[in-house]
Amino acid sequence: MRDHYQEQLDGLASGLADMCDQVAAALEMATQALLERGLQLAEQVISDDVKIDELRVGVEDGAFALLALQAPVATDLRIVVSAIHGATDIERMGDLALHVAQATRRRHPEPVLPEEVRPYFAEMGRVGVLLARKAGDVIRTRNLAAAAELETDDDAMDDLHRHMFTVLMDRNWQHGVAAAVDITLLARFYERYADHAVAVARRIVYVVTGRMPGPLAV
Amino acid sequence: MRDHYQEQLDGLASGLADMCDQVAAALEMATQALLERGLQLAEQVISDDVKIDELRVGVEDGAFALLALQAPVATDLRIVVSAIHGATDIERMGDLALHVAQATRRRHPEPVLPEEVRPYFAEMGRVGVLLARKAGDVIRTRNLAAAAELETDDDAMDDLHRHMFTVLMDRNWQHGVAAAVDITLLARFYERYADHAVAVARRIVYVVTGRMPGPLAV
Repeated sequence: MRDHYQEQLDGLASGLADMCDQVAAALEMATQALLERGLQLAEQVISDDVKIDELRVGVEDGAFALLALQAPVATDLRIVVSAIHGATDIERMGDLALHVAQATRRRHPEPVLPEEVRPYFAEMGRVGVLLARKAGDVIRTRNLAAAAELETDDDAMDDLHRHMFTVLMDRNWQHGVAAAVDITLLARFYERYADHAVAVARRIVYVVTGRMPGPLAV
Repeated sequence: MRDHYQEQLDGLASGLADMCDQVAAALEMATQALLERGLQLAEQVISDDVKIDELRVGVEDGAFALLALQAPVATDLRIVVSAIHGATDIERMGDLALHVAQATRRRHPEPVLPEEVRPYFAEMGRVGVLLARKAGDVIRTRNLAAAAELETDDDAMDDLHRHMFTVLMDRNWQHGVAAAVDITLLARFYERYADHAVAVARRIVYVVTGRMPGPLAV
């Protein structure tokens, strides 16, 4: 009985970590599609989103079953509650990658991004994917030093996001309002994606230490 | 013992409903500040946000204690799990109201909104506040007909949000890129606020029926 219980708990963590891998792949593909006007790649991200939603349902059902049948306490209860939160955060990361892909599809065959902002999005994509992968590793290893690293990576994302706005607000912006609106939303999607990855890592810190790290500035 | 248990369960619902009232008040004040360049009102929304965060901690702690000490099952377990989700959604609504207030403060004494888009934001504010209040009522009454109403209100918000973009994208837009960027983000905050209110109502449907209504289009 105890072994089955432990398997169920481990199953929650591996489900969450799998979700992180999926949303990392989704953002990687969505960013590539955005940069290269890749309609097919964008379509794939859009159609794959349902798999992330299914993984989320699996984690939530697993958590509910554990609570109902095993009545976990202490650290185990923190694991289950954190899995419920984590599944929500990671599914949202998938939605945000989906939104990037949808923007690419909506403008196709026109590019969404003027040439001068492409490097920012390449970098936001790289940092976002890194954050999702690291969140998956933190879930698997419960390594608190790795969890702290996500905060630094998120600072890098925030800097990119802020810098993006100074580019848009510059009087020399030549690409008109429609492009600026697209870019504003896209940059926001990447920034929120990163915030959710940090939230996932913070929940793991809570599992291990019993205390939540400070609130996320949003 | 059973009475205390029931009190704890009821306490979760009343905590969530109180959070709804607070975030409704926050969005109402933030919208008024946005429309009237009300710095003092914006400051109040910003300083009051900590109260919403405290209510959230109270709900989460209450849910955790219930799970640890009472091991609820069936409908009661759904109540507790939904409270955990609801607290996250409603706190996020508070953050989004806060972001509206921060935009007002950032541009003060300049107005954030050109005259022609003010009516849209007045209406988005009205619908958002209505959604938060209705979500609170649904939590208190578990009225499924009222829960369904939120979907219609959210459609109204989505229409406003879409229409806002056609105004921004219009070739006759005279207010430059910086204003368009502000408005894009603000409109997004209102739209997301509404989405979270709908998510809260859907969780109550799940509590009552054991089944989640269809996914929210985001």
